[in-house]
Amino acid sequence: MRNLDEFTITQEALRRLEETPDPRLKQIMASLIRHLHDFARDVKLTEEEWLQGILFLTRTGHLCTDVRQEFILLSDTLGLSQLVVAQSHSRPEDVSEQTVFGPFHVEGAPKLPTHGCDLAAGIEGEPLFVTAQVLANGEPVADAEVDIWHADAEGFYDVQEDGWAVDDARLRATFRTDADGKLSFKTILPKSYPIPTDGTVGEMLAATKRSPMRPAHIHFKIDKEGFDPLITHVFREDDDYLDSDAVFGVRGSCIGAYEPHERGTTPFGEEAEDRFYTLDSRFVLHPLS
Amino acid sequence: MRNLDEFTITQEALRRLEETPDPRLKQIMASLIRHLHDFARDVKLTEEEWLQGILFLTRTGHLCTDVRQEFILLSDTLGLSQLVVAQSHSRPEDVSEQTVFGPFHVEGAPKLPTHGCDLAAGIEGEPLFVTAQVLANGEPVADAEVDIWHADAEGFYDVQEDGWAVDDARLRATFRTDADGKLSFKTILPKSYPIPTDGTVGEMLAATKRSPMRPAHIHFKIDKEGFDPLITHVFREDDDYLDSDAVFGVRGSCIGAYEPHERGTTPFGEEAEDRFYTLDSRFVLHPLS
Repeated sequence: MRNLDEFTITQEALRRLEETPDPRLKQIMASLIRHLHDFARDVKLTEEEWLQGILFLTRTGHLCTDVRQEFILLSDTLGLSQLVVAQSHSRPEDVSEQTVFGPFHVEGAPKLPTHGCDLAAGIEGEPLFVTAQVLANGEPVADAEVDIWHADAEGFYDVQEDGWAVDDARLRATFRTDADGKLSFKTILPKSYPIPTDGTVGEMLAATKRSPMRPAHIHFKIDKEGFDPLITHVFREDDDYLDSDAVFGVRGSCIGAYEPHERGTTPFGEEAEDRFYTLDSRFVLHPLS
Repeated sequence: MRNLDEFTITQEALRRLEETPDPRLKQIMASLIRHLHDFARDVKLTEEEWLQGILFLTRTGHLCTDVRQEFILLSDTLGLSQLVVAQSHSRPEDVSEQTVFGPFHVEGAPKLPTHGCDLAAGIEGEPLFVTAQVLANGEPVADAEVDIWHADAEGFYDVQEDGWAVDDARLRATFRTDADGKLSFKTILPKSYPIPTDGTVGEMLAATKRSPMRPAHIHFKIDKEGFDPLITHVFREDDDYLDSDAVFGVRGSCIGAYEPHERGTTPFGEEAEDRFYTLDSRFVLHPLS
């Protein structure tokens, strides 16, 4: 086919998929081409706007490294990530809800003892003592792998530092639950923070006057053979940004009780002179059938 | 808003655009979000497929350099580029047709004298003598800037060589038309060739069993103040791939007569013992009103 116009080109592009061996890939590519072409026709995209889009995607790609994933951040801020999460996990109501993964998880966080470690040694912030239990079918899940990661009191993740390597990990760790499905650790209270605005996602948010703020949270990723992997957050209930999360990720069921204590004995048995917080969370896994 | 599901998230993502100052950007972003979300719902995109998409875009970005533009190649092969070109240039029938730009143009090609240069010195191929004239409203357009670029007899552009710099330019040049709107040069006959298949676009073509072939052509880009810039190709009429161009770019009006001559006097006044080709092309610009 030659002399394709802005309408006939769609049928020709779809025709070229005819030999695709994998039916699922064929379905995805066909839908992608239809929606991409519809978008360009709907707004009558100009050549200059098209080129701006190409250069935006190129800069986004160039920002991606081992420790920064600007395309995930873009997907998160366009609502795509949470949409995909939502449609991928229809499950019983008593099972913990999934949220977006976000761009700041890294593989290979320090593996720490199940109880009593301080993830925040030397990092400024208000002390927080976290206790958590992993359950399924009403029973504790022992030996589950629990990854946790969160931002510091300024809103930065460790990986956002120049030259970061996995040995510099802080405010992130991997635990294994004990026989009661439990774990505990000390850290600092997470604060609400802006997602990184120094890249293309920041350009997009600025151009649309959107807030980059996320409500304060700790990420949890829980893996145990025989269960659907759980990726979730625990948000603070008093946060100003729960209804305007830049990445659309807040579930009511994922809001935890971060309790302030003015002084007294901490869950680690220390006597505290200053304010500290406690958080006790339960996570319920979904068995794979 | 919290507890967004895969349907309500679209309205919330659109609501976040409310403060966008530029109405055109707001329109484009709203349509993009609608179509992106519709796509993900239509195919019920899974988290694993989403991640494959993220990594595909990331690798595509990493392949982009000063001399390689994999996102343009992706847009070309999805039919988006030609769609945008087609809807951007409604014009009188007697004006030359636009085609896709492609990923191999570079700024700063050697500026050569209007007549008599050989772009192919030392490069193997069948000699081709090109004469061209630029017109508008039936009159010659003098002092128009004409960029030309094409692949060698193996189907490679100079920029595809490792370590290429603009000083290594070959089979590309910039001319200025003379008082009659004319220019001429010697080069080699272009051949049909596969677009680069060593990147993500190649992965996509292989997975969908699509042909990477483009019919043989020379690219022309013609700029003159007061006229719509013309970006076009001149294809060979005897090419096997005119109806299956991997980037959907063939216009009937852009097929040129590459005439073979078994021997004799070339347009440059040389006596040729072996076969050579001639191509005489006319380009008609569209005045900006």
